[in-house]
Order: sequence, then structure tokens, then C-alpha cells
Amino acid sequence: MICIKNSMGIDAINAVNAVSFEADKSNNNNTEYHKNFLKWLEYFQKNDLVGCCAQTDMKGERLKRPAQQTDPDMYLHVVEKRSDGIVVRGCKVHISEASIADEIIVVPTRALGPDEKDYAVSFAVPADYDGVKQVVSIHNFRKREHITKGGDYGYTDSYLIFDDVFVPWDRVFLCGENEHGGICALLFALFHRHSYSGCKPGIGDTLVGLAALAAEYNGIPKAAHVKEMLKEIIMVSELGYAAGYTGSDLGKPEVYIPGMGNVPYGPGSFIPNSIYCNVGRCLTGEAVFHEQEILCNIAGGFPSTFPYEKDLVDPELKPLLDKYLNRNPNVPVEDQIKFWMTFSDFTCSGTSGVINYGNYHGGGSPIMEQIAITSQYDIKLRKSLVKSLAGIEPLKAGMLRKP
Amino acid sequence: MICIKNSMGIDAINAVNAVSFEADKSNNNNTEYHKNFLKWLEYFQKNDLVGCCAQTDMKGERLKRPAQQTDPDMYLHVVEKRSDGIVVRGCKVHISEASIADEIIVVPTRALGPDEKDYAVSFAVPADYDGVKQVVSIHNFRKREHITKGGDYGYTDSYLIFDDVFVPWDRVFLCGENEHGGICALLFALFHRHSYSGCKPGIGDTLVGLAALAAEYNGIPKAAHVKEMLKEIIMVSELGYAAGYTGSDLGKPEVYIPGMGNVPYGPGSFIPNSIYCNVGRCLTGEAVFHEQEILCNIAGGFPSTFPYEKDLVDPELKPLLDKYLNRNPNVPVEDQIKFWMTFSDFTCSGTSGVINYGNYHGGGSPIMEQIAITSQYDIKLRKSLVKSLAGIEPLKAGMLRKP
Amino acid sequence: MICIKNSMGIDAINAVNAVSFEADKSNNNNTEYHKNFLKWLEYFQKNDLVGCCAQTDMKGERLKRPAQQTDPDMYLHVVEKRSDGIVVRGCKVHISEASIADEIIVVPTRALGPDEKDYAVSFAVPADYDGVKQVVSIHNFRKREHITKGGDYGYTDSYLIFDDVFVPWDRVFLCGENEHGGICALLFALFHRHSYSGCKPGIGDTLVGLAALAAEYNGIPKAAHVKEMLKEIIMVSELGYAAGYTGSDLGKPEVYIPGMGNVPYGPGSFIPNSIYCNVGRCLTGEAVFHEQEILCNIAGGFPSTFPYEKDLVDPELKPLLDKYLNRNPNVPVEDQIKFWMTFSDFTCSGTSGVINYGNYHGGGSPIMEQIAITSQYDIKLRKSLVKSLAGIEPLKAGMLRKP
Amino acid sequence: MICIKNSMGIDAINAVNAVSFEADKSNNNNTEYHKNFLKWLEYFQKNDLVGCCAQTDMKGERLKRPAQQTDPDMYLHVVEKRSDGIVVRGCKVHISEASIADEIIVVPTRALGPDEKDYAVSFAVPADYDGVKQVVSIHNFRKREHITKGGDYGYTDSYLIFDDVFVPWDRVFLCGENEHGGICALLFALFHRHSYSGCKPGIGDTLVGLAALAAEYNGIPKAAHVKEMLKEIIMVSELGYAAGYTGSDLGKPEVYIPGMGNVPYGPGSFIPNSIYCNVGRCLTGEAVFHEQEILCNIAGGFPSTFPYEKDLVDPELKPLLDKYLNRNPNVPVEDQIKFWMTFSDFTCSGTSGVINYGNYHGGGSPIMEQIAITSQYDIKLRKSLVKSLAGIEPLKAGMLRKP
Repeated sequence: MICIKNSMGIDAINAVNAVSFEADKSNNNNTEYHKNFLKWLEYFQKNDLVGCCAQTDMKGERLKRPAQQTDPDMYLHVVEKRSDGIVVRGCKVHISEASIADEIIVVPTRALGPDEKDYAVSFAVPADYDGVKQVVSIHNFRKREHITKGGDYGYTDSYLIFDDVFVPWDRVFLCGENEHGGICALLFALFHRHSYSGCKPGIGDTLVGLAALAAEYNGIPKAAHVKEMLKEIIMVSELGYAAGYTGSDLGKPEVYIPGMGNVPYGPGSFIPNSIYCNVGRCLTGEAVFHEQEILCNIAGGFPSTFPYEKDLVDPELKPLLDKYLNRNPNVPVEDQIKFWMTFSDFTCSGTSGVINYGNYHGGGSPIMEQIAITSQYDIKLRKSLVKSLAGIEPLKAGMLRKP
Repeated sequence: MICIKNSMGIDAINAVNAVSFEADKSNNNNTEYHKNFLKWLEYFQKNDLVGCCAQTDMKGERLKRPAQQTDPDMYLHVVEKRSDGIVVRGCKVHISEASIADEIIVVPTRALGPDEKDYAVSFAVPADYDGVKQVVSIHNFRKREHITKGGDYGYTDSYLIFDDVFVPWDRVFLCGENEHGGICALLFALFHRHSYSGCKPGIGDTLVGLAALAAEYNGIPKAAHVKEMLKEIIMVSELGYAAGYTGSDLGKPEVYIPGMGNVPYGPGSFIPNSIYCNVGRCLTGEAVFHEQEILCNIAGGFPSTFPYEKDLVDPELKPLLDKYLNRNPNVPVEDQIKFWMTFSDFTCSGTSGVINYGNYHGGGSPIMEQIAITSQYDIKLRKSLVKSLAGIEPLKAGMLRKP
Repeated sequence: MICIKNSMGIDAINAVNAVSFEADKSNNNNTEYHKNFLKWLEYFQKNDLVGCCAQTDMKGERLKRPAQQTDPDMYLHVVEKRSDGIVVRGCKVHISEASIADEIIVVPTRALGPDEKDYAVSFAVPADYDGVKQVVSIHNFRKREHITKGGDYGYTDSYLIFDDVFVPWDRVFLCGENEHGGICALLFALFHRHSYSGCKPGIGDTLVGLAALAAEYNGIPKAAHVKEMLKEIIMVSELGYAAGYTGSDLGKPEVYIPGMGNVPYGPGSFIPNSIYCNVGRCLTGEAVFHEQEILCNIAGGFPSTFPYEKDLVDPELKPLLDKYLNRNPNVPVEDQIKFWMTFSDFTCSGTSGVINYGNYHGGGSPIMEQIAITSQYDIKLRKSLVKSLAGIEPLKAGMLRKP
Repeated sequence: MICIKNSMGIDAINAVNAVSFEADKSNNNNTEYHKNFLKWLEYFQKNDLVGCCAQTDMKGERLKRPAQQTDPDMYLHVVEKRSDGIVVRGCKVHISEASIADEIIVVPTRALGPDEKDYAVSFAVPADYDGVKQVVSIHNFRKREHITKGGDYGYTDSYLIFDDVFVPWDRVFLCGENEHGGICALLFALFHRHSYSGCKPGIGDTLVGLAALAAEYNGIPKAAHVKEMLKEIIMVSELGYAAGYTGSDLGKPEVYIPGMGNVPYGPGSFIPNSIYCNVGRCLTGEAVFHEQEILCNIAGGFPSTFPYEKDLVDPELKPLLDKYLNRNPNVPVEDQIKFWMTFSDFTCSGTSGVINYGNYHGGGSPIMEQIAITSQYDIKLRKSLVKSLAGIEPLKAGMLRKP
């Protein structure tokens, strides 16, 4: 439940590690991206810093590529190359925990064409760097004054506006290699979708606990529909976990490149299996609102109209509310009150709405996973199998199933 | 969209109108419930008052009936009968718009046994009546200071604590007739589920507008998945509407009574068809979270991290945010900003969470409609039809389909 | 349950009635389509004939219009106009009950451009007409020899190959008016989708009966999941019925024409409301496989491995099978046997698979209803409503909801 | 795709291996079940035999336990113990491939009480053993005479009636140890659900191929809804596979026993993780009918009314059908014909209906997996986590997530 929010930075580091190595290689090692990266990484690790990853661009007109936008700044890009570094402009959005990070790692957000080399840029800057403007959204649960809870939870997202920011060359990890820019975008997403296979089951633990306690406090823990619904939450958590587990175990130092299939990539560090990371993340993303429905179904209306803290401690109302809110004689009423207030935080607060959006779109919306899955899965093999069943072509050797 | 919140009171009036008439009849007209009701109704109508309906009790231990509760006050009941009136005790919850209503109409919340006559009570009191304590939840969208919107919307719910409240006899519409108490509970629910067939399509209009504008402002109005999703929202709205339309048209002055089927009931006023009202309300209730998923899918992450009003008007940030938030060059950026702030109100605010709970459980949770449907539908007829197909029994005359 | 299969012919008649009238009008009454149609209709009615409707063309390359096909015959079209009539060529597929119909009514299958006038053709010919070749699929349940059932049910579909068929002018109802050809296609579909609002609840009756008896014979009639599942089937049936009921009641002598909205059309005969007919049919179509899942869930594996008739009456096996198949002591074992054999017919037979396809695609696949709904629904009105909420534009008069 | 149908026997062997060992242990090794089993296994392996597993009993009245049945034979049980062996009576149903197996391995079907020791019996007999009567259902695709296909596929299920069958002691692996009988039932199911994590992806390969080829032959391979639907099938296959993969890798020589949690069990052979095997099998089971819907959606009506083989080769019809069935000019028409006939076999044949039932209920219906999941998952841990968030109890050490 308590996320230390390191995954974005680490996932970006993993992606840049491979991409900077390969970009140098394709430049016949006339560039020093990987050396820059390793030097920066040493600094990052020695000082035990926290990083965030700035990937998602503002994107502007969604059906146009970066180079086609009316405003070319809708995707972050290099506006000037100088002998000592580069100047970048653009706005990265939904950047989780940028407000508390030490370092911002910038990576591209999509595949890029030869006319979009300026958009193929990756670098790191300190989070309070000159010219980087953060517009922060704060997602905290309601403050309490009287009824204690287990802690104050929350997180932040930032718009990061790069208003002509200068980056010295030794912090630049990619600059102009558009093929590798697209791979970098995919690789961060892949590592981050893999991270979700650990993240989401943690969230699922909270959902299972909320649902099971709501059923218990409502006096219906053994109702058939409660068991059915608990099963559904558990399935999402554990299938998501299994997908990540399998994706790890089948990982290789390879990436999928359209037209080439899976090819060796990077300095040898492992990259999780893309199909499993994507089916797992797609499942957990698509489940978000159904899980909220389950919580709503089991809870009933209580979380939406629960009395305010000040009413709960008001001298005139407290005895009456303590009497009437004591719906399960087996549970102290103060625990029932604490529980429903926390349940309401997770379901009927502004932050709960924001969390749903994060859990749905974070790491890539379901459509992004669909694109990864349908473009990388060996559908041709399955067509051949069916053709052999239909007698259209013979069954060939090597038609054995592989993930 | 803009609900004047009269439906609860009117639906309660329709229920009490029939029930008070029948209760008198079953008392050989030794009671004057219906006369009391009509007199009160005349006062209510002449003064153009607004009523709310207090039905849902605190309920306590959910698997126990009112008479079995550890605390007998978990359902509102009569604690004293006096020559001039009755004294009632209990707590009604989730009472929408009680805080702005003139009159509170109290009805029972469930079927009642012969040992629960004290719980079979219906009456009306002014909303600011002595001994009635309101604990109010306020569901407003965020206030704005700088960026105008079309109006301030919101509503309220109340806990209504009846702390030994005296009600004079001429405001009592039912007191002790437990069979009619159960019918009263069902009838208010039925009328209110029927009201939802008009209410929900109004909400659906907003959802369709939000989804369609989000697609337009995101530049993807013609995407296949957008059309598919718009269709889904429209289907829910219009099937819900059709169910109510049909339920009205097939209405009769009849109620369904377990073991007796549909029987004439009340002074002749029409009662909508129960099957159609229930299938309609069940559909719209069960669709709530999927509709939110659709909005989330089409919108992307924007509504969850949109800049705060003060950042949007900040002199340093405004030019940058106006530049970057201008993602669709065909729409003035100030309109884009207004739209996404309103979208966020409907999806990522505390009130949006509360609205979901109301739209899901209001008028009876899906399980309540399921109970109504499966207990009232003529399943026996359908079994006979299949038996005739299977050759187990002959096809009988009168096996023609009826709703 | 027992369909007399008249709906296709009647729905075609209703469509052609309106279209032939309007086509004449747009030809300044230089054509006599409507007169031809009325004369044919009189003959059809006087002789109490049965008609079928030949709409669906082979279609060929699905992303190409008729005029773009490699083989121009993939949609039926006029290949010669003569003084005494026309010659048509093409192949209509999935034509239900053509094998037992007296008359085949041919209508176009889609919107047509000015270069596709030859495809805008409607006419009627006898079903055993010269040059019309029928390739028939027969969908009967398994024949029985020993264990009787309530009757023999089944139906047929035909490919109708029009191999240069001559049609005399007085049987031609449309020939070359491409705008009306498209309307004719839509109108037949609309009437037929409306017919489904009566048809599908009849099928639903069978499904409810099968599910309820399976639960009873399995000894679990009161299980929570059984009630939930019965509710789901009932909802589909009755929401579909309500949609048709409302579509009828809101019918007008009008059609929706893209770019023009709803306009008067035809000689004054009523046309059901398109939105309601389409949401109803879409619901029932999309529910087909989930309903089969419900039957499978409640039945368990029994219908898939039930003993063959000859085993059931085999002298050695009969006593043993009668003993072991008697799983519910409250039901005669011979009734249990009859029931499961019929259940198997409806779920595990070749015909049951075919029925599913018919119930899913008949009258237009779900995507066709989606196109009708999203193109005809007043989405602009809903956008304006949301704009007024967001403060983008004022609330205008006339923004009241209408279906 | 081509299943050699060994999994049932092997899964039963794995279960009996552990259970016979533990039963002996709990009998202070006064029994020789495990020795019997190992001796039989040696014979089985030396002769390279094929086994099937007879688990599912007729079950009779579903809400009654075996000992409560009106007819005690509704679950197979020991009717006589003799010095040289036991006599058993009962009827096992849905026993896949019993008709072609060499050996039948019998195991109990459910948890058993102390009054049901006679039902706690496991043994092996040859499939053509005296007194074992097989009532076989044959599930073959349609025979062809003219249009070749890739092979003849199919399988069989049997009712196995044990009509007072004598089993010598050296083929008895359990007899009377009711606690181990229940574990044996669970263990076979667990191993078999694990097998489904390999089986179902193989079926999924066929489904992906059928869907992808149908889209290609229909000329819509790049349609948005096709990609979405392919993704859904792939997700089911690969999440099911990942669940099995993870279940294998986290396996231990342990079983879950109610009230005791996971405890060491058996002679040391590994048992897959129950949670992962169950979430995987539940997912693939519940997906069956939705996958059929996807095939139906992409295919259109073609598979349901495809011409019969004799029409396709009829001299008069062949040229016409070859012309009109050639809907995709990039694919030879004979391949299109072969494909749609095979597609029809998998979707609109009696066998396709039976396959759906097998894929849904085989290895345990979804409700059985739900019971396993919700009874074995550590829900208490998740409740504690939420209590710590709510401030009801402190966060404890050891609350780290574990599968």
C-alpha cells in the first residue's frame, strides 16, 4: 500500500541503460551517451537519490505525429545544439512524484520518424533545475483533526514545463537517434508495466481488505455475492502478479523491433518479456472501475454520506451517532467509524477519483498495451496452425507453441 | 442535469396515497389514515411545498430483521402511542435533500412480520421539527474564484435522527398494519425506480456530452472505440427510459403481493408496472462504474492532474499553460480549460465519488431490483413452456407471453 | 418459441411500401413502383402467402463499396434493362425460410452512391422462380426414435443465387434510385430490428424456462447465483421488449436521413422510432453468448455428455441409467431425461450453434446498430448541455431532453 | 491443438502418489496404499499405458452430502470389504477418454465426513474390466467426403458405471481415510487445473488463428475491433499460461488443509501453488463463451449457413458457389471454403457446443475455483493491512505481501 514511488526512476534508468549503449553503437561509438549515463548513474546511486521519469508529452493533436503538430512544442524537443550542451523545450505531464524527486530523467514518449530526430532526446536534470517549472497537483486524503488514522498518505503529480532549458552534454543520453528514441519510449513503458505487476497486487491487498472488512462490518461476510466479488479482486491481483513473475523469468537482453522481431539489445542487462508484462498491466488497468463497483456494492451507501468529523465529535450528536453507527455489535463503534472514514477516503474523495485515473492510465492506457500485444504476438504462427487443421497447408515442424 | 429533487417526495406521496387507503380498508375504516393523508396533501399542494422521503433505516445487523436487532432502534419505530399522537425513535440515513425540504415523509424500509407492527409506521413532519436532528453531508462541486462555470451545482444528504419525536395523529398515515408497511416500502421503491427512468437519461445526457466533447477536444471524435463507447452510454440511457415508458403505459391500480400475484390496491391511482421499472433501474444502476470507465478511457489522464485555478491565472504560468493546454487548435484554449475543469468535477472530485454511490444504490441497490424481478416474474409460465417443448407436459392454452 | 417466420416478409413489405412511394415521388411520378407494389401486395394478401426478405448480399471485399468490388456481382444488381423488365444477377445469403416461402422480396443491403444505381433495386419473385437457385441449410434438432419430445422444431436458411433472372416491370419496386435504395436497406433493417423486440423475448422465455428447470432438476433453485442469472436473462428479454414497445409508441411516418435528420417519408404508414429499435436489438444481440454461458453454468456438464437415445433404451443399460440419472427424487426420471435431452438440443447441438449466430447477427450485427445509434442520436444537443454546465456557452431554450 | 489426452491420468497419479503416502502414515503404516500405488505405477510406466481419471460422481441431490442422498450410490462407494479386495458401486460421469484409456484411476470427488468413510476410496482398474460399463459420447467433427481437412479430430467422454465391481487390494490406494479422501479430490483438481494452464493456451492458439484468419478472409484484418478482440483472446491464453508458470515455480511439497493452512504433504513430490492454478483456471473457464462471441462477431453469419459439402461439389452449383464464395481475391477460393468449413466445425457443430461445456466446467467449474481461492487466500492479512491504514490497529511486522 505504501508506495515509495521509486519505480518510475528505476524503470527509466533501465531503459536508458540499454538505449544509450545501443545509440552509441549505431553511431560507431562517436557519441558518449552510455558513458554519460553510467557516470550520472554512479552519482545518483552514491548519493542515494530519488528519480522520476518524465515521459508523457502534452501531445496536442492526437492523430498527428510530433512533426505534424500546429505547435511543434507539443512534444519536448531540442531547439538548439551548442558545443557545451543542448537547449530543450516542451511540457511533460502527469509526472508522478517529480515534486519530491532529486532527479528528473527525460525520455521520449513515442515512436519517431527520421523527420523527428529533435524529439529523440533523453537526459537527466535536477528537479529544481533552472528553467524547469513544476505545476503540481497534490493528491492527499482528507486531513483529520479528531479521529486518528494510521498515517497521512498521498502523492503528487507535476506538469514539468521545460522553458528553453539548457542541458550540458554530460547529462545527455540520447540526442537525435530517432529509432532508438522510439525504443526508449517502449522500453521505459515495458519496465514500468512490469513494475505494475508488483504495484497493483499491493493495491489489490488494500481493495481485498476494504471489501472484506466492509462485508464483515456490514454483517454479511459469508454472503455468496461477497465471496464472488472477493474472488474477482484476488484474480486481478494474482493474475497481474503471475504475469509479472513470468515476464521476469522469461526475460532476456532483447527487445522487440517491428519488422525484426526480438533482437539482442543493450549491454546485456535483462529486459522482461513484453507479452507477459503487457497482458498483466492491461488486465489490472481494465479492472479498476469494476473493482470500485465491487467496493460500492458491498459497502452500500455508507461511505458517501458518512457524517463529518466535526459532527462525530459534537457533544450533542456524538452519543446519538455512536448509538446509531454501531451497526455491528461485535466491533467497537470507534473502529467502525474509523473504518468507514478510511473506506470513504478510498472511494468517495477527490483523491480516490485521481487514483482510479492513475491506476487506469499509468504505465500506458489499455489501448497502449493492446498495441504492444497485437503487434508483437506471433499471430502468423497461430494462423498457420489453423491452416494446417483446415487442410490449407501442412503442419510444419517448429509449430510448437512458444510464448 | 439540473435536478429539482422533487421525485422522492412525490414518489412517497404516491405510495402513501395507496397504502393509507388500503390500511383503512383492512381496519374496516376504523382508522383515518387516508383522510389524514389527503388533508396533509392539500396543505402540501396549496403551499407548493417540497417534500423528501425518509425511508432507509440504519438497519444494523443486516441479516437480522428489525425485531431481532440487538438495538431495536436500528429501524425507526413507535415507542409510545398516546391519545394525541405517537412517539417515534430511530435514524433514517441517506435522505437526499432533507436539508432543503419543507416536509419529511417517513415510510418503512422493508417487509415486516406480525411481531414488527411498531415498525409499520408512516407519517409526515416539517423538516425543522422538534426532535428531528439532521446530520448533513454537502455534495457541491469545487468552488471557483477565477474560471467561471455555468452555475453552482450540488445537493445534500442527511441522517435524520428521530430522538423520541412526537407526531400528532392527523399527520400519521400508517401505524401498526405490518402487511401494509411492507407494501408501502415496496411501493415507494417502485415509484422511485420509475422516476429513475427519467432521471438517469438526464444524467446520461451529461455523460454523453462529457464523453463526446472529451473526444472532440482530444482530437479523436471519429475513433472506433469512441463510437463504441458513446453507444454504450446511449444504450443505458435509452433502455432505461424505454423501461420507464413501458412501465408507465402498462401501469394499473394494482400491486404485486407475494403469494397473491397482482391484485387491485389503493383508491384507483395508477401504479407503474413493477417488472419494467425494476429491469430499467437495475440496468442504470449496474452501469454506473462502467460509464465512469468510459469517461476515463476517452479523457486520458488530463482530468486527474489538471492545474489548479490559481496556477492557471498565475502571471508567470498563465502564458505557458495557455500555450501547452491548447491541444486542439480548433477550440479556444479558455474553452478547453473550462471543459476539463468541469470534466474533473464530474470524475475526479469527492462529489463525483458520492454521485456514483447515489446512482448505484439510490432507489434500491441492484440486489433489491433482482429480488423484485425474480420474485414477481412469472417463471412458472416459462418452465411450462419448456416442459411442453421437452414433451414433459402438453402445451396449454393461455401460455401466451405476457410481460 | 414457435416462430411462424413471417416477420422478414412483413418487414420488407413495410419498407418497400414507403420506399416505392417516395421513389415515384422523386421521379415526378414517372415511375409506377408504388402501384406495382400495391398490386403485388393485394395478390400476396388475397392468397395468404408467406414472404421472405432477401437482403444480405455476399458483399465480397468488406472494405470496398459495391462499385469497387473486383467481382461486381458481389452485390445483386441489374445487368440489363429491357422494355418488359429487368435482368438481375447476384447472390443473397442467410435468407431465412426462403425454402418454404411463396415469395421472395429483394431489397438492397446498404447505402449506395450515384455510381451504384444498378444496385438500387427491389422486386419480388416467386420462390421457385426460373433462374433462382436455392442452396439450403437445414437447422433441425436431432431426430428422436424412442424418447418423445413436444414437437419437431427447426428452420432453414438459403443462399439465393440470381443467375441472370428476368423480372417483369410490374414486380419491380425500385430500379436505379440510389438514395432510396439506401433508405430501403435501412428501413427493412429498422422494421426487422423492431420485430426482434417481440421475437427475442419469446426466445428469452425459453431460456428462462431452461435455466429455471435446470436449477430445479439440479436441486439448486434457490441458490444466489441462479437468481442472479435468471435476473440477467429476464432483463435482456424485458428491456428488449420495452425498447420495441417504446419504439412503436413513438413511431411516426418519418425516416432519418443523414444530413437532414428525421423527415416525413412514405404514404403515411408508421415507422417505429429508430433509436429505441436499435438500442433494443443491440442489447439482445450482444447478450446471446452470455445467456449461453448462464445455461452452461447452471446445467453443469450434463447436456454435453448425456447418453444417446439408444443407450437410454438399451435393455442392459436402461435400469442402470434410470437409476443414476434420477438425480432429483421429486421429479420422475423420464422427465429428467426428456428435459436434459431438450436442454442439450438448445445448447450442445449443431443447430444450437447456428441459432446463436442467427440471434447475434440477424437483423443486423451489433456494429450495425451502433452505426445507426451514433449517427442518429442527437449528440450535439448533449454537447451543448455540457458546454452550458462548463460555462462555455449559455443554456439555450429548447435544450429539453427528447428521445 | 492436438491433445494426446494424457493429463487426466497423470494428474490423478500425482494426486494419488501424495495421498496414498500420507494415508499410510496416518495409519501408522499398517496399510500399504503407497506400495500398491508404486507397484501399479511401475507396471503402468513399463508398459507405456494411458490412464484416465474417474472423479466426478453423479452427485444426485446437489445440496446434500454423499451420506445424505436418497440413493446412496449417487457417489461411488465401497459396498463390501473382503479379505482379497473391495467391491465398489457407483457411476462416474464425464470421464474424458475413458474409452481409449488402458487404465481407469478412480478418486473421490469431494470433501468427506467421518460418516462417509466408504466414499473415501481410490483405486485403478483396467478400462475393460469386468463389471465396468462404459456409456460413451463421441465428439467428432463432421466427416467429410470431398473437401479434405488437416485430419480427423475428436474425443470421447464416458459414463463409467461400477456395477458392484471387485478390486483386489493391490490395486487399492485409499479405502476409508475420509480426510485424505477430501485431499485426494482437491489434489487431483489442483494438478488438473495446473494442466489447464498449458492446455488452454493451446486452445487459445486455435482461437487466435481462427479469429485472425476470419478477419483476413473477410478483408478486415486491421479493423480496430478485430485488434481489440484478438487482444482479449491472447490475454486469456497468456494470463492463464503465466498463472500456471508461476504456480509451478512456487510449487512445494505442501497442501492447503482448512484450519491448518499450508502443511507438508506426500513423499516430497512437488505440488503446484494452489492460488495461481485456481486464478488461472477460473479465468480461462469464464472466458469460454466470450471467446465464442468474438469468433461470431468477426466471422459474421458465414459459418452458420455455409453450403453443404454435396452442394459445393455439385456440378451445377460448384461454378456458382466458387464464384460467390470467392470473397477475398487474394486467397484461393478453395482455401476460403476449407477455412469456413473448419471454422464452422469449431463454432456451429454439435461438437463445438460440447467443447464449450468441457472448457467451461472441465477441471472444476468456476465456482469450484472460487471456493478454493476464497478459502485459501490470506484475506485476514489484507484486513489487518486496512485496519492499520484506518488506525484501528498498528502495522505489524510480517505484513509483507506474499502470494
